[in-house]
Amino acid sequence: MSSWGNAVKISIFGESHGKGTGVVIDGLPAGEKLDIEEIYLQMSRRAPGKDKAATPRLEKDIPEIISGTLNDTTTGAPLCAFIKNTNTRSQDYGDMLSKPRPSHADYTGYIRYNGYNDIRGGGHFSARLTAPLVFAGAVCRQILSRRGINIAAHIASIGNICDERFDPVDVPDELIYRLSTTTFGLINTEKEKQMRELIEQCRIEQDSVGGTVECVIKGMPAGAGSPMFYGIENVISSIIFGIPAVKGIEFGSGFDGSAQRGSRNNDEFYFDGKTVKTRTNNHGGILGGISSGMPIIFRTAMKPTPSISQLQKTVDLKKHKDSEIEIKGRHDPCIVVRAVPVIEAAAAVAVINILSEVHKL
Amino acid sequence: MSSWGNAVKISIFGESHGKGTGVVIDGLPAGEKLDIEEIYLQMSRRAPGKDKAATPRLEKDIPEIISGTLNDTTTGAPLCAFIKNTNTRSQDYGDMLSKPRPSHADYTGYIRYNGYNDIRGGGHFSARLTAPLVFAGAVCRQILSRRGINIAAHIASIGNICDERFDPVDVPDELIYRLSTTTFGLINTEKEKQMRELIEQCRIEQDSVGGTVECVIKGMPAGAGSPMFYGIENVISSIIFGIPAVKGIEFGSGFDGSAQRGSRNNDEFYFDGKTVKTRTNNHGGILGGISSGMPIIFRTAMKPTPSISQLQKTVDLKKHKDSEIEIKGRHDPCIVVRAVPVIEAAAAVAVINILSEVHKL
Amino acid sequence: MSSWGNAVKISIFGESHGKGTGVVIDGLPAGEKLDIEEIYLQMSRRAPGKDKAATPRLEKDIPEIISGTLNDTTTGAPLCAFIKNTNTRSQDYGDMLSKPRPSHADYTGYIRYNGYNDIRGGGHFSARLTAPLVFAGAVCRQILSRRGINIAAHIASIGNICDERFDPVDVPDELIYRLSTTTFGLINTEKEKQMRELIEQCRIEQDSVGGTVECVIKGMPAGAGSPMFYGIENVISSIIFGIPAVKGIEFGSGFDGSAQRGSRNNDEFYFDGKTVKTRTNNHGGILGGISSGMPIIFRTAMKPTPSISQLQKTVDLKKHKDSEIEIKGRHDPCIVVRAVPVIEAAAAVAVINILSEVHKL
Amino acid sequence: MSSWGNAVKISIFGESHGKGTGVVIDGLPAGEKLDIEEIYLQMSRRAPGKDKAATPRLEKDIPEIISGTLNDTTTGAPLCAFIKNTNTRSQDYGDMLSKPRPSHADYTGYIRYNGYNDIRGGGHFSARLTAPLVFAGAVCRQILSRRGINIAAHIASIGNICDERFDPVDVPDELIYRLSTTTFGLINTEKEKQMRELIEQCRIEQDSVGGTVECVIKGMPAGAGSPMFYGIENVISSIIFGIPAVKGIEFGSGFDGSAQRGSRNNDEFYFDGKTVKTRTNNHGGILGGISSGMPIIFRTAMKPTPSISQLQKTVDLKKHKDSEIEIKGRHDPCIVVRAVPVIEAAAAVAVINILSEVHKL
Repeated sequence: MSSWGNAVKISIFGESHGKGTGVVIDGLPAGEKLDIEEIYLQMSRRAPGKDKAATPRLEKDIPEIISGTLNDTTTGAPLCAFIKNTNTRSQDYGDMLSKPRPSHADYTGYIRYNGYNDIRGGGHFSARLTAPLVFAGAVCRQILSRRGINIAAHIASIGNICDERFDPVDVPDELIYRLSTTTFGLINTEKEKQMRELIEQCRIEQDSVGGTVECVIKGMPAGAGSPMFYGIENVISSIIFGIPAVKGIEFGSGFDGSAQRGSRNNDEFYFDGKTVKTRTNNHGGILGGISSGMPIIFRTAMKPTPSISQLQKTVDLKKHKDSEIEIKGRHDPCIVVRAVPVIEAAAAVAVINILSEVHKL
Repeated sequence: MSSWGNAVKISIFGESHGKGTGVVIDGLPAGEKLDIEEIYLQMSRRAPGKDKAATPRLEKDIPEIISGTLNDTTTGAPLCAFIKNTNTRSQDYGDMLSKPRPSHADYTGYIRYNGYNDIRGGGHFSARLTAPLVFAGAVCRQILSRRGINIAAHIASIGNICDERFDPVDVPDELIYRLSTTTFGLINTEKEKQMRELIEQCRIEQDSVGGTVECVIKGMPAGAGSPMFYGIENVISSIIFGIPAVKGIEFGSGFDGSAQRGSRNNDEFYFDGKTVKTRTNNHGGILGGISSGMPIIFRTAMKPTPSISQLQKTVDLKKHKDSEIEIKGRHDPCIVVRAVPVIEAAAAVAVINILSEVHKL
Repeated sequence: MSSWGNAVKISIFGESHGKGTGVVIDGLPAGEKLDIEEIYLQMSRRAPGKDKAATPRLEKDIPEIISGTLNDTTTGAPLCAFIKNTNTRSQDYGDMLSKPRPSHADYTGYIRYNGYNDIRGGGHFSARLTAPLVFAGAVCRQILSRRGINIAAHIASIGNICDERFDPVDVPDELIYRLSTTTFGLINTEKEKQMRELIEQCRIEQDSVGGTVECVIKGMPAGAGSPMFYGIENVISSIIFGIPAVKGIEFGSGFDGSAQRGSRNNDEFYFDGKTVKTRTNNHGGILGGISSGMPIIFRTAMKPTPSISQLQKTVDLKKHKDSEIEIKGRHDPCIVVRAVPVIEAAAAVAVINILSEVHKL
Repeated sequence: MSSWGNAVKISIFGESHGKGTGVVIDGLPAGEKLDIEEIYLQMSRRAPGKDKAATPRLEKDIPEIISGTLNDTTTGAPLCAFIKNTNTRSQDYGDMLSKPRPSHADYTGYIRYNGYNDIRGGGHFSARLTAPLVFAGAVCRQILSRRGINIAAHIASIGNICDERFDPVDVPDELIYRLSTTTFGLINTEKEKQMRELIEQCRIEQDSVGGTVECVIKGMPAGAGSPMFYGIENVISSIIFGIPAVKGIEFGSGFDGSAQRGSRNNDEFYFDGKTVKTRTNNHGGILGGISSGMPIIFRTAMKPTPSISQLQKTVDLKKHKDSEIEIKGRHDPCIVVRAVPVIEAAAAVAVINILSEVHKL
């Protein structure tokens, strides 16, 4: 299912090499003025072939708003946006039809849809489907920002090269602003050179590399989320795994914390003026599924791009025998860079739902 | 929300120190004979004070089936089970009412419910609520087992002491059987002594320790799950984070895989007779959200028990000032051991939903 | 599915001749003091063998609250209530197992559940399952009442004997209070004698009779509900048809209005002080799925009790041949009387969901 | 919310005077060849200004399929269709902005969306939004037809002029075919003249008239649907009330049946060869929410078009005083005719969901 959400539902459609991709966002509050340039900026951060966001307005990946706004202001009716595919030159997919690419969804999609799935460029499984998700997030984050909630992510690692982590108790607004408007998001920008070199090396070796992304949600009021199955971790993870290549997620001290003692991992409370805070934030802003008012912090693991040009073994589903495949074309040797705005976007859609759930009869 | 699921919905209720806990399971297939002893066995694996499962029938945590069966066979009507609380001696919670325990849900629950939440023993946030989840899982896993799908988990680590990992391409049935019927589940049982010593040391030091649990779902047919938001990772994570103390989840090679090259992380396909398999299983049995037919493997990170007897700093919410707390009573210094059957149970509830979703008009 | 709702979910369980029936209500606001006597009163209005609600506390159908409250006040955790079955003497159901009763769910349940459904007394299809629904409604209506929303229904007709209808623009509070606390609810109480005579006549003739119920929701603020599929009509009808024997529903002028001209059926707006009202209320308080602030009025059609003692033709599913059946025991010749509080209850559960949906970020 | 469904979800978007309307259908089975001409035919039955469906291909209301198909065959990915608005000449809506039209959603939408809703032509409340619903139904009914399930509806009445009703136990295939492909659907076609005259008279008198539509679902296998809240009546009514102007629905003998005795309303079972049938069909093919195998029959009440050209009283929301309104432009004096294919379409979307729900692990 490509539909998600309760109070604010998104329904994503489209294919990599079809007419385009898009999203319907149902349940948005009315009267929200949309900053279209800001939406373009977010789209451009994810767009292929754009690394530095020199100009926010891109030639491609420009979303057209089909419904749900009047004078760029939400009407409360479903907001549909469409992003036309412009660069889908015809190509020979004959091979792909029978030879599933390793670690892609070709094989599982084939089984799931009895061979009827559109495999051109990955079809509906393509990372291109994150474009409408970024659009939906761009709308939601503007609405959240007006309520004091801001979201930013950075490349926490590519291969074994790591950026610094967020200070979990104090993420400066300037950092959030910088990260949420850039294309190669790092806390320690000096790491960029090393990371770019690793990516380039992978390209040369016809290989790819994975990485991790760390995301912060700042300004979330305490008391949002619900115990058990509508906790913030449940809701965020259930949308984040909708992003291709995500294979893991952790909140707060996460896997590291699981190796710790309680005396070290526990976060003691104190009063900061009238506000209850914690001196450390191993809980990642969430206790019992509910926000504590501290920054919400999570990290996602992204597998290396499965599309590599090296010769790989696979099967021929039509001939029922083992075979080999060489994936042609230019592929992004590291999707982590472009995944950063996608993760922010998914987080924004999650947060608007979590906030809307809290009871206000 | 303590309700979860689509085709098979569970609705969990109860509190730690109230009358009891229970679950309504709506949407079960009719005609499934339940092995009650097997359900008791699963309950006993999670029950407190029971480490070695000598006898499956325990004096406590015995679920009473209220509805939904006739002669121990499901009727298709909602199955409700109730587990009476037996050991809830009255206690002085005066302090807890105003002093939230660090890294517990006391504070966030207080904010979420305007101070009306039942804080005795954690109320509805208590790990005791995993008892009805284990019941629901015990029902679902029997139904799955008849369809060739079996689930088992083990303690992957406690603190820094690690068990071996599952062989991701070949998990023997005997191992699955042994793990899914024991109380201190390890692949390499020689690690038990070391782990128990670490737990005992934590108890002596009035401290606690976290760990990780690895779970396998074997026999899942290829082609289950859906792209984007109803992928297997989405569905499993959205229920697993309903288990208290879970702060992270990863599938297949997960976070480790994110540091790898594609050439190493990709899983090549081959024909094993008529079946398509992969020689490695870094994808954890899931590609594009859909099962590949390989074992589904995931690991969860569990934070150290927040209840430690050491003096900790906190706030006094009534007096609006910083304060201290000493949590009395005996606490489990490591919840990882008892979390193993809970994670299996949650996985079983997830899998029965995923299987029911696939289109069969 | 016996689960319903979004913001406030109910999950109903139990069988007519099993241990009992119950409900889990998930998502209630915290801090709502429950008037237990008032709940008993509502239960007694529906209970069998109780026509005049002399004493609110009945010997039977007494719900036990299992979870979700502390000192009779909601905690925000799922509220579970259980109603023990007390009057389920063993009986010979041999015949029923193979001979479906005409116009009951015996046959369709048999097919749906492959013969595994509990057919004793109708099992989960029994009208007895409306007891937990009345409980859920009794909780919700107290919460609504505090917000100025009150619900009442009356017997609009039994057979061809009709009560008066609500004045759709002005339903007095006293009438709402009287109807919502009585057992034979009529606007014109002089009709009671005639109606009782008809019911008695049906009993003597081993027959039954149907009727209609009219319900009003007063005090609903304008602007609740959503266009298309989450309109008030959609939501109310989707729960009301969960009540056995309901075969039709109409809002405002309903079927009568469909025979009218627009010039007569349209409701003109005017200012009543600062409030916009309509001079007539053929729209039943709902336009475009959204409340107008006028009373919400709907009527439901209830078929005659299918259980009649006359000899009826049916099939023998085991012998695969035509057969006959005589349904023994005492049956209610007219369920309309006891359906009145059930419809009010379902409306209350619907309204609390509708109100919770409106966006309040 | 303009989203509906579980297994097959539709998400409708668009406005009357915006760029267009459309729908995303998520969860369709893969491999279904779509007959595009047949879809056009269904669209043309609903399209304005087209009464006799001479040619299936219309100049307007032509849906463009954006995603989800390859060679006109479903891929299993979300199917999005878009219908461009072609006839939205600019108009003076100044008056409408402050003066809500009686019995339209102008006022309730204004309150619901704080005045931000698009009121041009009714915006998202417009009956124009039924165009994408007809599209969704046209897709679903083809899939159902291949499984032996066919749907047809007819004008049961306009004002006080009534068509015959379906023979509830035997609806000929030819009649279903005829009705589901025509524009003025009647069982007794001799009534057409009278009905057209009434409509013309209303037009002349600047008035409008309502009516009822009767719909049959033939070929539904016994055993579909679930008790309580996922019964066939619940599901169908929850989508049908999404159609503008629907104010009532009844199944089987419905309101008439509620005036009957049980001995007359009950439907006796018999064997017709190997199949269990009923000699009468007052239950409308549904018992306990579950299909009996008999034709499913329901009727909907549609209020008279609220747009009439006569001078009407209303309020001026800006000036806060009573006012008057004259609605200009050409309006359909009777929407019942064009509602027929819409109701069939909604029924098709409901049925595909009901069928998908039945457990097939």
